[in-house]
Amino acid sequence: MVSNSIGQHLEKVRQINPLIHHITNYVSVNDCANIALQLGALPVMADAVEEVEEMVSLAGALVLNIGTLNKRIVDSMLKAAKKANELSIPVILDPVGCGATSYRTQTTLRLLEEVRVTVLKGNAGEIGTIAGLEAEVRGVESGNVTGDLVQAGQKLAARLGAVVVVTGATDLILSPSGAATVSNGHPFLGRITGTGCMAATAVAAFSAVAEDAFAASVSALACFGVAAELAAYSNPSGPLSFKTAFLDAIAALQPDQVTNLAKIAYI
Amino acid sequence: MVSNSIGQHLEKVRQINPLIHHITNYVSVNDCANIALQLGALPVMADAVEEVEEMVSLAGALVLNIGTLNKRIVDSMLKAAKKANELSIPVILDPVGCGATSYRTQTTLRLLEEVRVTVLKGNAGEIGTIAGLEAEVRGVESGNVTGDLVQAGQKLAARLGAVVVVTGATDLILSPSGAATVSNGHPFLGRITGTGCMAATAVAAFSAVAEDAFAASVSALACFGVAAELAAYSNPSGPLSFKTAFLDAIAALQPDQVTNLAKIAYI
Amino acid sequence: MVSNSIGQHLEKVRQINPLIHHITNYVSVNDCANIALQLGALPVMADAVEEVEEMVSLAGALVLNIGTLNKRIVDSMLKAAKKANELSIPVILDPVGCGATSYRTQTTLRLLEEVRVTVLKGNAGEIGTIAGLEAEVRGVESGNVTGDLVQAGQKLAARLGAVVVVTGATDLILSPSGAATVSNGHPFLGRITGTGCMAATAVAAFSAVAEDAFAASVSALACFGVAAELAAYSNPSGPLSFKTAFLDAIAALQPDQVTNLAKIAYI
Repeated sequence: MVSNSIGQHLEKVRQINPLIHHITNYVSVNDCANIALQLGALPVMADAVEEVEEMVSLAGALVLNIGTLNKRIVDSMLKAAKKANELSIPVILDPVGCGATSYRTQTTLRLLEEVRVTVLKGNAGEIGTIAGLEAEVRGVESGNVTGDLVQAGQKLAARLGAVVVVTGATDLILSPSGAATVSNGHPFLGRITGTGCMAATAVAAFSAVAEDAFAASVSALACFGVAAELAAYSNPSGPLSFKTAFLDAIAALQPDQVTNLAKIAYI
Repeated sequence: MVSNSIGQHLEKVRQINPLIHHITNYVSVNDCANIALQLGALPVMADAVEEVEEMVSLAGALVLNIGTLNKRIVDSMLKAAKKANELSIPVILDPVGCGATSYRTQTTLRLLEEVRVTVLKGNAGEIGTIAGLEAEVRGVESGNVTGDLVQAGQKLAARLGAVVVVTGATDLILSPSGAATVSNGHPFLGRITGTGCMAATAVAAFSAVAEDAFAASVSALACFGVAAELAAYSNPSGPLSFKTAFLDAIAALQPDQVTNLAKIAYI
Repeated sequence: MVSNSIGQHLEKVRQINPLIHHITNYVSVNDCANIALQLGALPVMADAVEEVEEMVSLAGALVLNIGTLNKRIVDSMLKAAKKANELSIPVILDPVGCGATSYRTQTTLRLLEEVRVTVLKGNAGEIGTIAGLEAEVRGVESGNVTGDLVQAGQKLAARLGAVVVVTGATDLILSPSGAATVSNGHPFLGRITGTGCMAATAVAAFSAVAEDAFAASVSALACFGVAAELAAYSNPSGPLSFKTAFLDAIAALQPDQVTNLAKIAYI
């Protein structure tokens, strides 16, 4: 039943073409724009304080990604997200590198305090840091996390009133009322830059059309992982060939295909 | 005769290797640099107020693209463009997302007022907005435009003393004294991010070498569209494979090939 | 013996996975991140003055690339590099476009004065400018240089107490006590944007693990050039296909393969 809804969510993204407003880093921004388009959404990147409120008002979801943050951008994030809250537009926060520097950690905590985040999506190190576990973060890469991430993540979700997504070989989707895993994907996703950022864009696109953020996150990550598997079947000659094949697979993804191939478990 | 000149323009870009100074967004900037190189031009991206006058003085054309504008960048655009005007260096303005937010619309109008623009290139929504038509702009995507875009665009061209280019399935090239359409291209161009920005770079490269901006715009868009058609013939497995094939096709484009395949009409 | 060490250096990058902190331009930043990953290093891009000292403290090397410099970024570069000096972390400076504008030249000279640079890597025009030769720089492309670049570069190396790398068809690696050439590579490297920046990332990754910066630079450029040759063997249909093949070749590079194919001469 739920995996039927994945295909329906994907169809809805393609029918509605939600505008996804990104305030994001300059490393993976082109990839985020392209995955939004391949899913059927419309990306827009706008970070000027003069326009973010107006831009987010047109959007179906807002992505905040702190990958290359600075003071100007953080001010714009706060302004955009408050407007999104006012208009009940989903806010997806990707706390890239949270835990690596105190500026990233403090900015993440400030955003979570001043803004109602709909989905908090990070890797184990980033989410572990926010949840108060001992976590290692090397730059923007996840390291070891000590403790029960599922339990800590679910507590965090309850405290924030948000869905908490932990991406990895098996993705965790945690909410106060339920939890799921998605075990689609391929190791190549870890060999290229920007896949975490692209996953946040996918979650945003589905959040703009789905009935709730938990279902949206599950569907988005299943589509993401299934596309990676299909791309790997095409036998790419390396990680960068895989990247092209992955985005092409997103574009070609069929609703019933993702329904059939999704590996979702509710825990 | 004119389509002969397309091939000649392309040859000239490859002989002269004009430097194209970009002040542009951080989403498609890598693609703009690569299309400039594949055409035979030299791209340079420089947006610091301290250096834009000196950099543009070395250039064959200046591209102003407001895709991710902010106050600092707009100041640099004004400074660079005034210097370009002083030196009679062509200025190509790409008003990305004009109409979506008042900041983008006002910045576009300010640039058009304070600077002499050689070519104004946008999609239907952006140009419609500037021309005073009712136009829908969703983020940076064109929506419906009500009214006669050819007539309004030609009036705008006369008022600005500029060439107005409207990209789409059929491109419009409008000047006070004439108008043309280019109907080359492929739907895949609409499926990847940055193709509009790349088209502006192409127009800039040709403007740096051609006898006038109208002829340069026609030639640039014909080369762009023909390369898209040739890339599609290679049967790419999706939009991102197409993107690679498209840039490779630009690199391989032969002058007589583009002369033969160009679909230009003067209206 | 030395070419054996190339393979060993590559193996070490893959074992240690050094974090490479970049303060770099927004044009080629994604490519730099990807080449770091394909070599086995971990890239992180962080330019906020609030965090650069903390980030560089975690890093194995720091890349400073002035491709799209501005005042904010230059302040961060100085702060990060001084911290790196304090901690004996190698600093790789890529003076992109030095010579094209006085802002770039002065910023380069200021960085070289205030900071101890481990490796200065540029094209002939950039290094020629710094070394006081008559050099032409068109935007970010190298032009003609008058004079003996090897001699001038070696003097510069002695004055700076740094390794000076001049990339080109034949790369020069110059130090006060020795000099080498690497003649691997392929003309396609000059047909796409960002290869110079990627070479700096490679030098940084090897500098983080090798016994000294001279050996690191030789190994990095040999790996870079051998990967380009292997990519060209796959018969790419143009420069952008080559780019994908090149990064895939970096990922697949075997230590003994690079040891066998490296074309290094000590001069």
